[in-house]
Amino acid sequence: MARNTVVTADTSAPAVSRILAEFVASHPSRGWTVAVDHEAHRTFYNWLGCAIGAARHEAADAAVAASLMLDPGAQATVLGRTEKLDMGSAALVNGITSHTFDFDDTHLKTIIHPAGPVASAVLALAEHKGLSGRDVIDAVVLGIDVACRVGNTMYPDHYDRGWHITGSTGMLGSAAACARLLRLDAQKTAMALGIAASQPVGLREQFGTMTKPFHPGGAARAGLMSALLASQGFTASSKALEAPRGFIQVASDKRAWNEITDELGQRFEISFNTYKPFACGIVIHPSIDACVQLRERGVRADQLERIDLQVHSLVLELTGKKEPQDGLQGKFSVYHGCAAGLIYGRAGEHEFADAVVNDPLVVETRRKVHAVVDDLIDEAAVHVSALLKNGERVDIAVEHAIGSLQRPLSEQQLQDKFNDLVVPVLGQARADEITRTCRALGSLGDVRALTILCQP
Amino acid sequence: MARNTVVTADTSAPAVSRILAEFVASHPSRGWTVAVDHEAHRTFYNWLGCAIGAARHEAADAAVAASLMLDPGAQATVLGRTEKLDMGSAALVNGITSHTFDFDDTHLKTIIHPAGPVASAVLALAEHKGLSGRDVIDAVVLGIDVACRVGNTMYPDHYDRGWHITGSTGMLGSAAACARLLRLDAQKTAMALGIAASQPVGLREQFGTMTKPFHPGGAARAGLMSALLASQGFTASSKALEAPRGFIQVASDKRAWNEITDELGQRFEISFNTYKPFACGIVIHPSIDACVQLRERGVRADQLERIDLQVHSLVLELTGKKEPQDGLQGKFSVYHGCAAGLIYGRAGEHEFADAVVNDPLVVETRRKVHAVVDDLIDEAAVHVSALLKNGERVDIAVEHAIGSLQRPLSEQQLQDKFNDLVVPVLGQARADEITRTCRALGSLGDVRALTILCQP
Repeated sequence: MARNTVVTADTSAPAVSRILAEFVASHPSRGWTVAVDHEAHRTFYNWLGCAIGAARHEAADAAVAASLMLDPGAQATVLGRTEKLDMGSAALVNGITSHTFDFDDTHLKTIIHPAGPVASAVLALAEHKGLSGRDVIDAVVLGIDVACRVGNTMYPDHYDRGWHITGSTGMLGSAAACARLLRLDAQKTAMALGIAASQPVGLREQFGTMTKPFHPGGAARAGLMSALLASQGFTASSKALEAPRGFIQVASDKRAWNEITDELGQRFEISFNTYKPFACGIVIHPSIDACVQLRERGVRADQLERIDLQVHSLVLELTGKKEPQDGLQGKFSVYHGCAAGLIYGRAGEHEFADAVVNDPLVVETRRKVHAVVDDLIDEAAVHVSALLKNGERVDIAVEHAIGSLQRPLSEQQLQDKFNDLVVPVLGQARADEITRTCRALGSLGDVRALTILCQP
Repeated sequence: MARNTVVTADTSAPAVSRILAEFVASHPSRGWTVAVDHEAHRTFYNWLGCAIGAARHEAADAAVAASLMLDPGAQATVLGRTEKLDMGSAALVNGITSHTFDFDDTHLKTIIHPAGPVASAVLALAEHKGLSGRDVIDAVVLGIDVACRVGNTMYPDHYDRGWHITGSTGMLGSAAACARLLRLDAQKTAMALGIAASQPVGLREQFGTMTKPFHPGGAARAGLMSALLASQGFTASSKALEAPRGFIQVASDKRAWNEITDELGQRFEISFNTYKPFACGIVIHPSIDACVQLRERGVRADQLERIDLQVHSLVLELTGKKEPQDGLQGKFSVYHGCAAGLIYGRAGEHEFADAVVNDPLVVETRRKVHAVVDDLIDEAAVHVSALLKNGERVDIAVEHAIGSLQRPLSEQQLQDKFNDLVVPVLGQARADEITRTCRALGSLGDVRALTILCQP
């Protein structure tokens, strides 16, 4: 029996489903600045490194094993592994691995990790169809624009009520990107978005479990399948995003429709994408950055008497673990992050290994780190003061950590991160070859020349 | 960056994820009354007829074509068709077809159509594994109990805010049922429920499009895949249903936890399942029922001067279309429903064909039907008064329509409905054979003896 009650329905929403569909179907290839195109290459490269890096994680093992229970066709590569799966399952697994280390890209305005859902679907479909690198970059730019604009419309209410926004907007990004790759017209693209709108994936309650990275993977698969269905004539509401019982109004009380329409085709949300240099929550990045700088200024662990941090309250609230016992706990310890930065000059996935967290020098060093809350200090900043055994003092103030929009990773830093992730899985020579290929991805004739490099 | 605001969070919820997982993993086979077991057979049989009946619908064509783009393994039958697909895709397509005619079962307390998500996943997995009919019936009873109990917990708020509750609880039902079929222990069953909790499928905005029946299909696939992942060690939150950022609290402000726990293992929600005799919205069933009774009392269309209906306001609000132009519009016309009931003594899918809706005798008869709203009349009731050309008057009062809990379809009526759906696809002999097999499903050794009958 139908009911008619809708809480705070907005019946005057603009036709954003149609607007986005027309944009995705008709915007010219490379219809943006060189800077946007370059950022898309960086986004894709960073995503690829994260996915390959986690290829041997037990979450990947379980997801591949479950996918193989479906007897899938061998259409697309599982990055960093020997198995090939149907493109839907490959999108799922690569989406999972890309987010497993929490090391992928971040659209800071919404804390969406947009490449996971979008690039995972795009590469699987493009590989199967033998499409070009240009197709891939175009689809990534447009898909991320759709997901992040919908995110801007709903953030923060949608996130606050418990949705893991990466997977609950990502299915729209992957549907848009796959519709573009399939050359669907605006009408069918609207259907793809509509089918995807019924399939948000993600609850914040899952944080700390494998289902967190499942969210971008599930969203990648859902969006890809939505585009395939639309290509075959499957129908959906053409107002699935904006109608009173459509996705945005059902899932959020904030509905800033202009975030979808303003400067559409001129401002691209991928411009605001960032890449983490450190394999942990962004809140402790300034502190680690400062300790890396201490090391660059010549400070060595064995010279150290103590380190004092002045931090925003959120730092201790989220990462105040004084004595982490393993790698996972280390990710929630600003003290461990500082020790790693000072000793190794870095804090990649390796520096959060159990053995590193329990290394005697690391333990000794992190016990020398003391933090006090000072709420005059911005979330993005830190003041660090190192006192050496010889009485010397070295002070470092970080306003924006490396990896922020203000201080983006250099090409070399991005490559260092990529190598840290990929070399253990595929070796140095292969990592270099993939780096070269990714830097010129926009002019690659067939992406299978890339995917073949991503198998051991 | 994590945020901490949660609107109206309930931090004292009972551990319903664990409670349901233990119930599903440990409740004995056939641990319920003969009546419950019988109702499960009826639910399965009705679902099967609906799925086979819509096998040639264009939604099925599109969904099969899209699934074939994945190069799927040939693990499970698409009911009523020759193609075989991987079990996930078969669950998807059979879930779609079972709901395409809006003719499947209804759990009236929540208006969930529970068999679509649950039985579609169950049969695909059981066929691939060669499991028994007993396994299937057990899984259907338990899966439907999980979905409907979660539905009871959230209904009506969850539905009112725009979720299509069939697909947004169904993924839990199919995950539970598939976990049972895979013999997962309570811990892994909790993981299956947890993975599924992140994947609700369905918005009411999609009503009137193919994405409406996609919802039970998508939920069937999502739940099946969640169980496969859990079987391989994939993890999720063990409080994914009840936590402040878990599914129920995120998706509903009504959280009647006792609906999950009360009489668990004693009261089975499948007992409250109903089957539509007429292929249209339940609100016009009393009127059609009354007109069928007129016909049984000897009233013929050519004797008729006029028919007057006194109905609840909802009847005209939802199905007040005076001059339907095609079959779909006919489903929203109480006038057409009455004409069909009087002329044919039935209103199955055939009586909503375009040709029937435009048949001159049908058009003439429905123009003789007049309806007035009388809100003293219950939604479930109707008063019908027929005035014949000879001046005679025949009055019928229906308190509960055929197909309601109070007046369930007889075995013969259920079989008539099944035959109407299945004979055009598979022929009478095969329909009879399937009926015989379904009536003894609980003692069938291998369900492949059934699925082979469901292919043309």
